[in-house]
Amino acid sequence: MIVSAAWDRYLEERADSHIEELSALLRIPSVSALPEHHPDIRAAADWLAAKLRRIGVPEVALLPTGAGPIVYGHWPVPNQPTVMIYGPYDVQPADPLDLWQTPPFAPTIRDGRIYARGASDDKGALFSALVAIEALTRDGTAPPVGLTFFIEGEEEIGSGNLPALVAAERDRLACDVIVSADGVMYGRELPSLTIASKGLAACQIDLRTADTDLHSGQFGAAVANAARAMAELVSSFHTADGRVAVHGFYDDVRDLTAEERAQIASVPFDESAFLGDITATEPWGESGYRLLERVFARPTLDLNGLWSGFQGGGAKTVTPCEAHAKISCRLVPNQEPMRILDLIERHLEAHRPTGATVTMERFPGSARPFTIAPDHPALNTAAAVLRDLYRREPLLIRLGGTLPIAEIFQRELGADMIFFAWEMPDARLHAPNEFLALDDFRIASRAYCAYLTALAR
Amino acid sequence: MIVSAAWDRYLEERADSHIEELSALLRIPSVSALPEHHPDIRAAADWLAAKLRRIGVPEVALLPTGAGPIVYGHWPVPNQPTVMIYGPYDVQPADPLDLWQTPPFAPTIRDGRIYARGASDDKGALFSALVAIEALTRDGTAPPVGLTFFIEGEEEIGSGNLPALVAAERDRLACDVIVSADGVMYGRELPSLTIASKGLAACQIDLRTADTDLHSGQFGAAVANAARAMAELVSSFHTADGRVAVHGFYDDVRDLTAEERAQIASVPFDESAFLGDITATEPWGESGYRLLERVFARPTLDLNGLWSGFQGGGAKTVTPCEAHAKISCRLVPNQEPMRILDLIERHLEAHRPTGATVTMERFPGSARPFTIAPDHPALNTAAAVLRDLYRREPLLIRLGGTLPIAEIFQRELGADMIFFAWEMPDARLHAPNEFLALDDFRIASRAYCAYLTALAR
Repeated sequence: MIVSAAWDRYLEERADSHIEELSALLRIPSVSALPEHHPDIRAAADWLAAKLRRIGVPEVALLPTGAGPIVYGHWPVPNQPTVMIYGPYDVQPADPLDLWQTPPFAPTIRDGRIYARGASDDKGALFSALVAIEALTRDGTAPPVGLTFFIEGEEEIGSGNLPALVAAERDRLACDVIVSADGVMYGRELPSLTIASKGLAACQIDLRTADTDLHSGQFGAAVANAARAMAELVSSFHTADGRVAVHGFYDDVRDLTAEERAQIASVPFDESAFLGDITATEPWGESGYRLLERVFARPTLDLNGLWSGFQGGGAKTVTPCEAHAKISCRLVPNQEPMRILDLIERHLEAHRPTGATVTMERFPGSARPFTIAPDHPALNTAAAVLRDLYRREPLLIRLGGTLPIAEIFQRELGADMIFFAWEMPDARLHAPNEFLALDDFRIASRAYCAYLTALAR
Repeated sequence: MIVSAAWDRYLEERADSHIEELSALLRIPSVSALPEHHPDIRAAADWLAAKLRRIGVPEVALLPTGAGPIVYGHWPVPNQPTVMIYGPYDVQPADPLDLWQTPPFAPTIRDGRIYARGASDDKGALFSALVAIEALTRDGTAPPVGLTFFIEGEEEIGSGNLPALVAAERDRLACDVIVSADGVMYGRELPSLTIASKGLAACQIDLRTADTDLHSGQFGAAVANAARAMAELVSSFHTADGRVAVHGFYDDVRDLTAEERAQIASVPFDESAFLGDITATEPWGESGYRLLERVFARPTLDLNGLWSGFQGGGAKTVTPCEAHAKISCRLVPNQEPMRILDLIERHLEAHRPTGATVTMERFPGSARPFTIAPDHPALNTAAAVLRDLYRREPLLIRLGGTLPIAEIFQRELGADMIFFAWEMPDARLHAPNEFLALDDFRIASRAYCAYLTALAR
């Protein structure tokens, strides 16, 4: 490992104050999906801009978008490559609130973990990169490489404004490589590098059977029940063997090669531990593929929400007149989000239940899948850092999740993204009781020091 | 028609003050299904007891039950039959609130209608009987027949406490016939008498696939999605031709005789008006039966509510870990509610989706179906009153809805119930913008005067 007693000591001395700083960021409920939290989005952006200035980044600005602003920073270093540091500061909604042991925006330390929405995804990870840069430049020296900061506020809603912004700001954003603080680590003892992430397409389905909720005794035997019709409709999206039944859904999927399947098979995976960790009783999914192949490299159609009729206590003998479903698809090369939504719309027309009218609303924030060559030089450098730090060869993995910006940067800037990130599989991302292990934060900040140093010429 | 200028004039003179009184009752949000409204249940009972005392009923009492108390009253008349006046003072929940033009518990008169939850079902109908008795006894005379009042506060949650109470109070409740102010009229120009009502059995289904909501990218390809699993499960309750697919569901159903089918066919029914009134585009239901046969006399399984996952604005890429459904069944002779719930429970076991655990909670308030002989003497007397009032033969109809108490009284007291009630098919019972036409209230109160007089020896 590239050792620097100085930066290590600096981070050690300031460990407590850094956790306090992180807690301040976690207390800002910057939920991008909910309009009532838009002022908090802005507050988080201001907080990060101030932090960059405190570190000493010479140029800091907020770039407006239609959603949360980009926290932009630039610290040029002559004769060195420019590395863009990427991460989001927005977070997922926190509901269901009653399942949190402590409130989602009141960060709480228990058993060496800090619990809060965004603790792992992604404020904690992003902050580990920032304190690394703080440590590297602690005595007023320049960083080892040129730095550009691109910290966005709409990742959890699909980064819909970024394609246009990145295209417009191509010159200012020019860089040699992008390092993402958002991304997963395969396991606490299993360092990994991500070579692919899935695309995303999402929509809402609204179904109606009458103009008002009805008395089930008067109408239940006579007209379509919206809840039943919606259940019938969304059940039609999958076959009994777990495949997506939308006609044409798999048409553009590039099949895994034998080599890729072998590489995935070489990744250690304990299926019963994976299921046991979330108390799932058995796996479910597309037949013909191993579970890890499905997570890494097979597309899905997921129901995110479903609701109709009476949800209060006790019985209400009503025949609901409307029903709603939220759907998202995780996509793999070479599926196109817009074509997938077209196919879903066609499916809805073909499977319209008797007595129902069905409409579809496309959500913004669709994304194409992303891949990087497994022998990319910056990936090799990252592998060396991890090898040094963990004393084992990092695994090459694929992300079941989506990072739209990776593909956008690749397309617009011609720069590839290295996922250098520490979101652990047990961290309850997007779910109640999300947490960050303080040890992982400690390791991540040191790894960033080493990696940025190693990326220098 | 049995004419009494005196009572008619009395009702005419007090029309406005009676509507004001009714409005006071409608302002009490006596929703029996919601615990937060239990004080309102008590307030409505107190209001009605005070009203009975104002009318002059010599014995008035609140009989406690596990839910809302029974407003009991007794006015014996020597050498005359005893008629029990029955009606409920509790109402259905008012949600979805945003679909009401004026608030559900702020009764508002528009175009000759009074809009409020409970306006038709059943406070308005019940009140028409009370003002009739007020009119008949206006000068301090005894009513034409002995009267017992049994006004309950748990009809909309299934009258679960009443079987035990009626059995225990058999002597005090002894009567010759029961007249129910709860029940429907076939149409504003189509007077009718109800000879059957359906039974009811209701339950909630809770489904779980993991211990927490999950990131759809990490888990959507790997484990069961609770929303999808619930959709699959509840879709299994019906066949493609609209029959209930629960094994054994129809086993105990007494088939309609050719005579009964002919009688139902003789009831005027405009299917396109029926559908158009609720802007339904086409009918739905059990194949092999005409629509009116299904509403009158075929059992159903109805989804009343369905919910899982994210219901907020925009997209949230979550794999839900739990899903819930509320179900009720309308039953016909000779289906037994408990046996039907047993069959549903067995169905849930047989159709448990992969990766899901499923539990069922039986709701209280199940009810057996009810029938009365079409040639019952008190039914004939009611028919004569309606014939006189409307100048046409009343139709014999069957209630798609449920009135558990009818079958309970029949079993415990040996007395049959006559549905003498004015809930119109367009009145949006159990739905937003429920209303009562003031003309119907006027007719109902006069009809009660005539009917109670005609029931005297």
